[in-house]
Amino acid sequence: MEIFYAKEVAGKTVFLDQEESAHCIRVLRHRAGDEITVVDGLGTMMRCRLTDDSPRNAEAEVLERTDGWGGHPYSLTMAVCPTKNNDRFEWFVEKATEVGVDAVVPVIGDRSERKVFKTERSRKIALSAMKQSLKAQLPGICEPVSVKDFITGSQSALKLICYCFEGETQRRSIEDVLREVPEGTDITVMIGPEGDFSPEEAVLAVENGFIPVHLGPSRLRTETAAVTAATAVYLHFIK
Amino acid sequence: MEIFYAKEVAGKTVFLDQEESAHCIRVLRHRAGDEITVVDGLGTMMRCRLTDDSPRNAEAEVLERTDGWGGHPYSLTMAVCPTKNNDRFEWFVEKATEVGVDAVVPVIGDRSERKVFKTERSRKIALSAMKQSLKAQLPGICEPVSVKDFITGSQSALKLICYCFEGETQRRSIEDVLREVPEGTDITVMIGPEGDFSPEEAVLAVENGFIPVHLGPSRLRTETAAVTAATAVYLHFIK
Repeated sequence: MEIFYAKEVAGKTVFLDQEESAHCIRVLRHRAGDEITVVDGLGTMMRCRLTDDSPRNAEAEVLERTDGWGGHPYSLTMAVCPTKNNDRFEWFVEKATEVGVDAVVPVIGDRSERKVFKTERSRKIALSAMKQSLKAQLPGICEPVSVKDFITGSQSALKLICYCFEGETQRRSIEDVLREVPEGTDITVMIGPEGDFSPEEAVLAVENGFIPVHLGPSRLRTETAAVTAATAVYLHFIK
Repeated sequence: MEIFYAKEVAGKTVFLDQEESAHCIRVLRHRAGDEITVVDGLGTMMRCRLTDDSPRNAEAEVLERTDGWGGHPYSLTMAVCPTKNNDRFEWFVEKATEVGVDAVVPVIGDRSERKVFKTERSRKIALSAMKQSLKAQLPGICEPVSVKDFITGSQSALKLICYCFEGETQRRSIEDVLREVPEGTDITVMIGPEGDFSPEEAVLAVENGFIPVHLGPSRLRTETAAVTAATAVYLHFIK
């Protein structure tokens, strides 16, 4: 099943951008009159009939709309420190999109070795993962912010921070915390860099209502911890 | 923390192979008398004193042994069809090792596009993931077998098969099934190729005691499904 993404939808008309038009018309050789499946990136899937098969700006007419297509019964923001190796973060973005995530925020911590982040690359990966996994909602890939700004700005109903300070005994398992959360709760999970959060960041997070959680005994890489946390939320709510 | 892997342990002496010796002596410049941490790949971590700093075959004396180091409270075999793109399967091997898996069996199904499998490459990845995630047990990476031979040969107490036939209503969620399983149960999870299992394979699996399970509503790639299933087992038992 081939999915096309339309950034622009006006009434009953969807407009494919240059890239999607080229893929639909040049690569897959669709012609005016063909039925195609289009998603708007906001949760709606539309069965459409191609009305203009221009390979630069194709247009289609909406025949049927399905809202919440491929959606998930929770709202999840993953705030993750970019990994030294970009591919590992982009792999996380792909996997989190497949499983189900609403927003990804690259957060730069005191101990982050990588301070720059290629937002556009991750957006492309999220887009193709959304289409490949038959979802209609495109996760938001935010511009990077500092861990401290993210902590003080986060408004989620449930805010979790995963860190692994040696000898830390205050943390509960993420499963344990999720058990108390009603479906549909707006959840944020923050995952630190290879060198973990700084003690100052951890204290600031707790002061701002973040609950310290652990992901079990295994010592996970940053991107693995991020996918494990997103999977824990997914598995908890799809049970 | 730097971990070395010793294939051979005789009484109180551990022998590092050429690769590990070179890394320990040439790269990290350890010398006789240094304390190093060695794992045997079978679950035991050993604090050792280097007695021979030869860069080709270093030896060390065991000072202290810790069994079950970095272990997990379940036994898990993941039987997964190799992905078209090798990197995706190898990524699964790395992530499953970090989270905690006992054996990985590449299974070739009727609809597998990839019939060959590079066992040695996956073994190297499992070895480095074991060391990086501070575990002492090296997951076994088996030689590939056919899905049908694996199904008829599997002896696990709990055997699960994940597939996604359209309209399939018989499946329970993996979470739901795991809830009935006591800790320490020997579990096998089988994950199909991009084109899913063939109906014959699915029927044979059920005839041989495999329970059909799903991983929720999201449509996951083969390697994502495999990591999600391993993570479901991990999260269930570390709660």
